[in-house]
Parts: sequence; structure tokens; C-alpha cells
Amino acid sequence: MYAAGVRAAVDCGLRLGWRLTDRGAGPAGAWGSAASLITEGAASLLRDNGRNGDRVLTIGNMNPQVRAAEYAVRGPIVIKAAEIEKELQQGSQKPFTEVIRANIGDAHAMGQQPITFLRQVVALCTDPELFESPQFPADAKERAQRILLDCGGQSLGSYSASQGLDCIRRDVAKYVETRDGGIPADPDNIYITTGASDGIITIMKLLVSGEGRMRTGLMIPIPQYPLYSAAISELNAVQINYYLDEDNGWALDKNELKRNVNAAREYCNPKALCIINPGNPTGQVQSKKCIEDVITFAYEEKLFLLADEVYQENIYSKDCKFHSFKKVLHEMGPEYSNTVELVSFHSTSKGYTGECGFRGGYMEVINMDPEVQAQLEKLLSVRLCSPVPGQVAMDVVVNPPKPGEESYEMFTLEKMGILHNLAEKAKLTEKVLNTIPGMRCNHLQGAMYAFPRIFIPSKAIIEAETHGMAPDMFYCMRLLEETGICVVPGSGFGQKEGTYHFRMTILLPVEKLKVLLQNIKEFHTKFLQKHA
Amino acid sequence: MYAAGVRAAVDCGLRLGWRLTDRGAGPAGAWGSAASLITEGAASLLRDNGRNGDRVLTIGNMNPQVRAAEYAVRGPIVIKAAEIEKELQQGSQKPFTEVIRANIGDAHAMGQQPITFLRQVVALCTDPELFESPQFPADAKERAQRILLDCGGQSLGSYSASQGLDCIRRDVAKYVETRDGGIPADPDNIYITTGASDGIITIMKLLVSGEGRMRTGLMIPIPQYPLYSAAISELNAVQINYYLDEDNGWALDKNELKRNVNAAREYCNPKALCIINPGNPTGQVQSKKCIEDVITFAYEEKLFLLADEVYQENIYSKDCKFHSFKKVLHEMGPEYSNTVELVSFHSTSKGYTGECGFRGGYMEVINMDPEVQAQLEKLLSVRLCSPVPGQVAMDVVVNPPKPGEESYEMFTLEKMGILHNLAEKAKLTEKVLNTIPGMRCNHLQGAMYAFPRIFIPSKAIIEAETHGMAPDMFYCMRLLEETGICVVPGSGFGQKEGTYHFRMTILLPVEKLKVLLQNIKEFHTKFLQKHA
Repeated sequence: MYAAGVRAAVDCGLRLGWRLTDRGAGPAGAWGSAASLITEGAASLLRDNGRNGDRVLTIGNMNPQVRAAEYAVRGPIVIKAAEIEKELQQGSQKPFTEVIRANIGDAHAMGQQPITFLRQVVALCTDPELFESPQFPADAKERAQRILLDCGGQSLGSYSASQGLDCIRRDVAKYVETRDGGIPADPDNIYITTGASDGIITIMKLLVSGEGRMRTGLMIPIPQYPLYSAAISELNAVQINYYLDEDNGWALDKNELKRNVNAAREYCNPKALCIINPGNPTGQVQSKKCIEDVITFAYEEKLFLLADEVYQENIYSKDCKFHSFKKVLHEMGPEYSNTVELVSFHSTSKGYTGECGFRGGYMEVINMDPEVQAQLEKLLSVRLCSPVPGQVAMDVVVNPPKPGEESYEMFTLEKMGILHNLAEKAKLTEKVLNTIPGMRCNHLQGAMYAFPRIFIPSKAIIEAETHGMAPDMFYCMRLLEETGICVVPGSGFGQKEGTYHFRMTILLPVEKLKVLLQNIKEFHTKFLQKHA
Repeated sequence: MYAAGVRAAVDCGLRLGWRLTDRGAGPAGAWGSAASLITEGAASLLRDNGRNGDRVLTIGNMNPQVRAAEYAVRGPIVIKAAEIEKELQQGSQKPFTEVIRANIGDAHAMGQQPITFLRQVVALCTDPELFESPQFPADAKERAQRILLDCGGQSLGSYSASQGLDCIRRDVAKYVETRDGGIPADPDNIYITTGASDGIITIMKLLVSGEGRMRTGLMIPIPQYPLYSAAISELNAVQINYYLDEDNGWALDKNELKRNVNAAREYCNPKALCIINPGNPTGQVQSKKCIEDVITFAYEEKLFLLADEVYQENIYSKDCKFHSFKKVLHEMGPEYSNTVELVSFHSTSKGYTGECGFRGGYMEVINMDPEVQAQLEKLLSVRLCSPVPGQVAMDVVVNPPKPGEESYEMFTLEKMGILHNLAEKAKLTEKVLNTIPGMRCNHLQGAMYAFPRIFIPSKAIIEAETHGMAPDMFYCMRLLEETGICVVPGSGFGQKEGTYHFRMTILLPVEKLKVLLQNIKEFHTKFLQKHA
């Protein structure tokens, strides 16, 4: 009974693959035993010897949709990384001196400096006494003043309208208009969100309905950013995969979409199609033709479009250009532009600002049924409003200093510096990864990640199995343990069966990135030798 | 067909009672016709002449749980208030010159000044160049420095751990320990949230499961804060009401709890009990005895406790004291304190800080199954982290200046000034409302609201019916139109059948509050006369 409990707990830990503890790790600190994967819950079960069963809320009776959700970007690898960091702090000897977190698109954590102007505007709004300070430029003061006038009691501490501050929504609309060459944008269709994630989950929440064969199906790319699969699970919707074509630069193929939506109609009600452009984790930038294909497909199949365009500023390849779904939709003429329902998402967390912690974002809804839009407003109002400092950060992203303004030069230098640096790192990463035997990386055209395909020898696959792990999870755990490099296994994003990948960010400073890539190269070479 | 469409649209607008537009309002600006309640959606339906039906996402096929949710605090009254404000701006003549928003607990919007120290710490974290400035006191710099050291890349722009920054969770734990006379608090059980609302919805999300008779039931007080009913609807759980006893100072009666949980077991699976203390909208402060009763009840009935304690600093009556659920639970001895599952919620939005826009909050989970707790962490990780500026604001709330520190005196003056002022306004509001014939207000012991019972004559009830409105909605709409005062009808919070109330905040500056109360008195007197 006791043994069975342990076994169940370990199985559970493996299945969830979630909270790794330092319990059960051998004295040598080796991670290679299944015991080290016992969850905190399982460990507690052992301690409590069954009292667990008395609880009102248990793993067995909790929300099954939440239980089923997975989110690899902050999954077991990252928890293991935190443990190793703690061990290093406590003086434990390792073949490396620090953990390098290349698992998440968190630019500032990797040393990227904030845009001065953005922080000045937020600081002025936060502490209006700073308006007296000569340290702050006039254009920053002017923007802060304008935003505060829109705040209740001229305070950042007041709730904004649930949709976001008026003046910021107007600025977003202007930004979108300029970006799209003058196609009109209506501030009433702009919603300020708590990062893009919040917007995406909110729209998904509106979409889901039905039971059994009428359950809402949502099409997502594979590989995907796991917010999508996690939200689909939480909302009890049906995930419909469409595969991006790795051999063809992660291209999106209309026939692949068609095939999968047709198959899905047998068991659910496909209602929406999610696209990530530039791609996460795949880094491709979609061509105008590809976007037209997607829109035509959505029109023909009556699908609602969710366009995750948070990397719209992160384009590195000279052959590529960002085309917004809205602009392409508009250029396809009224038959499409008056009918296809589209929501586009953007964020302060990416681009050249990298302000993840502020949780700023917006979405623009196009052709949404006004009755549904009223419901959207109601849904947002339950959470009152998105954080106002994040709204201010979003405003600076869409309303940066203009030529002639005091901060323009410095802002432009900072912005171009960051974007050039990212482009250099994208190139470097792609180049080095492609020199590694048994590794292949597509062109890194945009976003912030490389998603190389890795060859894993069959001996390693068998060894992974004995640890109850996916082969690429095994690979990434080994990489972390041996080099301190934290990347996310491709299985967390989805990949074609029998292929393996990992996602790494390109955000480290160049010199550190060079070392990291060299370390990956050495690790991979040794890994192949060891499991040959 | 066309006429039927209009009718359906109008009905829908009335049913949703949501987005009021200025379309259909008569030339005199009278609101008293059903036409003025047409939703934007309905108006669009008229314009589009049925194209609506072609959309992928419609009011008919959207998420029915979202459609069913209601959130009165930002409902039709508030939308109407915004319209009236716009009309005033455009020079429209009204019997008043401004709309007074007494509908939402938004202190800064009502003129309350931010706590200087809090804003200084957030500004320093936002713009570290300010560390050079002599304008900022040493203790603010010390706190900002400590928080930044905990941030990736020492930047507020990095994602924090999903649970919140370590040092802030430690500060929260210390605050809770001090508040509760030394009962230990574990930082691992503290989660920084996006306001309290986010925490409450997250815990509810963990709790819900089952279908049909096994659907999760959640007990909530009536009157309630409508976040609860809205979240229950969104999550497709079952709302189990328990009524607070208005004739007995909004007391919570154990027999009432018992009766309702028993009745609910016939059709659902009651799993949790929500308590709001101090009460919103009702303003009572629960006695220790009452809390013991609630805990005993939860223990006996195997219910998970959600304690909404966001008004814990807002106690105005000298006879009252805030008792935390955690402390009372602990004092009841190990049989209870080791078993009863409890989550307590707090926020930066209330208390004396009133920093709603920062969306700061925390929750402490007690006796939660560690496996479920691991799932909670996973669920939070999908949304990455709560806004870091809000986390910093939360830190100041739990870690304010200490005696001997540079900012202590000023901080204490500001804090006591705000709390004394709130206490004065609570007393004033209760006193004046109780001088109005046909109105009765219980003791206003805590929180930020008055929830007086109002007598509505049967003639007015009949007139309300002809407008398709609840009687108290009709009353509040009239109040808004005639005086510019925006309060929320009791029907948005729930009330005993046949009784009517409204909720108003006590946040206006004293002199303005006096005028507002006088205006309510005059309005009410005239309303009774008119419908006598």
C-alpha cells in the first residue's frame, strides 16, 4: 500500500513533470534517477502517510482541465534550473559557475537595458513630483502629463476604463494606422491588455462553447507557443494541430490547414485559427502570399482569426518584411475586409523594449459582432482593468519620441542599437548551430528564438525512456546538468513525430552567447559520442 | 422580419442591460424610453440588416457562461454615466454640472492622494537613475535597491517568478506573522497576484469540476461583491447563496449556512465557502465568534474557505477589530488549524493606499494539498507573472517605513490622515442616510461603502416594470439622470426579495460627500412624493 502510494506519486510526478524537488537526489547531485522527479505533492504524501485524502481539494477532484494543461516554458527544466542555482549558491561544485536561462524571452533578465524614455514617462506618471526635476526631458513630461489627465484624479492609482485609458487607445489606433499605411483603426476596437497572453486567453474564452462533437475547435500551429495549448486545455476546447513545414523554412501550407480542419470537423466544431507571426518558437516571418492564403482559408472555412503579432518589430532578415494580418486583409478587398473576423495582439514584452514585467499589451478586434464586443467589454470589466503602469509602457511603444523632440535622438540610438544587436545575435546563433554535426537550424528571420532540430541517437532515446522522459527532455536535462544552459525541449512546443528540437533565446550579450553556443556544440558532440 | 430583428435586439439589450448608446435617445435627452437601451450590437444589426448572421462568432454561439455573467459595478449605470459625461462636455444642459462616480471603490479617482513613500519606491525601481537624486529618502532607496536585486537583470522589466518576487513574498509572510501575533507564515504559501480579483478567480478555477449533480457549488454571501457571481458563471460552477441578516447588522448566521448547503447538496457538490470580511457591499466587520462559527461549519461540511480580506485595514468603528481567518483558525487548535483549507486575499487597491491601477495583491494558501499547490503554480505560470510594479506597491503595503526610518513620520501622518478621514466619512454617511425617510442604513463598521435599504413605492415599481428594469435599477437611473450621482443598484449585489438597496462609496472629499448626501436626500424625498 505504502509502496503503491510511492509509485503512484512518482508516476504522478513524471506525468505532471512539474515541480522538481531536491528530495531524492543522490549525494552526487545526479539528476538521473526517477526519484528526483517526485513532486512536492508526492513527497508530502509520503510524509503525511495518507492524510492527504481528507482534504477538500485534491489532485483527484480538482479542475481536470487545469490539471491537463502544460506550460513548458516554465516547466520542469526551469524548476530544475532553480534548484541548481540554489546548489551553486550553497557552494556545490559543478562543471559551471552559473545557470544561463535561455528558456524564456526575457530580454532585461539577459542584460538588455530598458529604453530610457519609456522608463522616464512611467516614472513621471508614478511620482508627479518629478515634473519639477530638470533631469526629465520635456517630451517625456508632455506624454506623462497627457496620460495623467486621462486618469481618474490624475493618478496612476485609479482604475482605468476596463478597455484601457482613452488617450492610450487613441495612440494605439494611430500607431496601427501608420504601420499599415493609413488603413483606418478605430480606438473603440482597441483593448489594452495585461500582456498579450491575457488578450489571447480572453478572446479564446469568448469563442468556446458546446459539448461533445459540438465542442469548439481551435487550430494552432505545431510547433506552437504553449500558452495556446494550455489555454485550450483550461477552457476545455479542442486543439486542432496544423504542422509548419520545417523542411520549407517552417512555411504554413494551405493544404495542411485544409486537411486538418476537415479531419477535425468529424469530432468538433472548428471555430478559430491561431497564427504566430513572426513565429514562436520557429522564428520564420510569413510572406504576404502566405498570409493571403491563411485569410482565404479562414474566409472559406468560416474561421475566426487570432493573429499573435507580438514580434512585429523583431525582423532580422533583409529579405523579410512584417505584413500585418490587418493590412493584408484590407488589401484583399471588401469581400474579405468587411467579413473576416480578426484579432491582432501586441505587447510591451518583446520588440526592442522587452518590458515583460510591466505586463503591457493591446489587441485590436476587427469585424467582431458588436453584440459579442459588448460581451467582451463585460468580461474585461470583471477584472476591472489592466495594470495602468503597463498601459503607460504600451503608450510609449506606440507613441515614441518624434523627430525634433528632445528625446528623439537618444531613443533612436537605443532602439536601433538593440535591434541591430538582436539581428547580429540571430545571425550568429543560426550560423554556429548549423556548424554542429547532428543539428540543423532554419533561417532565423524574426522573433527571439532558435529552434534547431537535433539528432538524438537511439541509445539516448532508450536511456530517456528508462527515466520516463521524452528524448528531448532527457537531452535538455543533460545539457542543463552538464553546462548550466537552460533551454526548453521541443516536445513542450510540439514537433513532428520522430523529430527533436529545443528552443533557446538569442538574448544573451554577444560574447556570452558565443560561449553558450560553443558549449552547446561541445555538449552535443560529446552527447552523440556517448550514445553512439 | 425586420421588425422582429429590432424587437429581438431591443430585448437583448434590455436583458444584457449592458452597453447603452446615445442612439435612440429622444431630443430632450430623456432616458426613459426602452429605445435608449438598445445595445451597440442591436444598433449595428439594424445598420447591417442581418449580415450579422454571417459572422463566425455571434451572441448566439459564443461562450454561454460568459454571456450569462453579470458585473454590476461596471454595468449599465456606469455606461450611462459615461454618456452623460460626454453630453455635459458637449455643452448639454443638465440639472447638474458633473457626474459623481460613487459606484466603485476607486479612492484616487475621488481625490485621495497617493502615499508618497509608495510612489517613491515604485519610481526608483522604474528609473534607477533616481538613486542619484537627493529628492528621494534613504529608506525608499534601500527598499527599491533590495527589490531590484531580486529582479532578473535588476530590472522591473523582467518577468518575476510566477509566484512573485522572492523578497516580496518574504515581506508578505512577515507582515502576516506580525498581524496575527506571531503565527508563522511561509513565503512558499504566498502568491503575488494581479489585484485580489485575479487570486480569487484563480482559486475558484482550481476548485471547479464535475457535471450535472456533481458540479462544484460555491457558497457566496448575499449581498455579495459581483466578482464572485461573475466568476462562478464564467467557470460554469453552481452559485449557492447564503443571506446576510440585514436586521441584525448583516450578521452571518450558521443556521443559514447549514440550511443552504443542505439544500444545495440535492443538485450540486458544494466545495467552497466565500466570505468577505469586512463586508462588501455591506460594511460589517465580523466578530471572532462569527468567524469561529464559519470555520466550524467549513470543517463539519468539508468546505474550502476563501476569505476576501481586502478591507482589513478599513475598520472605522471603535467597537470592531479585524480578526483574520488565519489567526482565528490557528487559535481553534490543531484539529482545525491543521486541516481546514483556507486562502486569504489582500490587495493594494483598498486600505489606506487605494492603489487600484497598479493591480497589486497577494494570497496566502493554508493547508492546501501540495499536489494541488503545484498545479496552482503551473496555472499561474501560463500567465507568466503578475505586473512587477504592482508587486512593488504590494511590498510597500506590507513593509512600510519603520520607526526611526527617514520616511516614517510622513508616512504615518499620511496613513492616519486617510484612515481618520475615511472613518469620519463612514460616520457622516451612515448618519445622514438614516435621517432620510424611507431609507435605512446599518452601522458602517468597515470597508468603503454604504448599502442602505430604500423604500420604493409600488407605483415606482410598476413604472420600472414598464421600462423592463429592476425597481432599484430604475431608482438609480433616475438618481443619475436627475442629480449626476452614480451608484449601483442592490440587485447587482443580490438582496432579499422585495427589498431594495444601492451601494455608494464613502470616498468623496468630506465637503463634496455632504453635498452628495444632501442631494440623495432631496432626490429620495421627491421620488417618494412623485410615486406616492
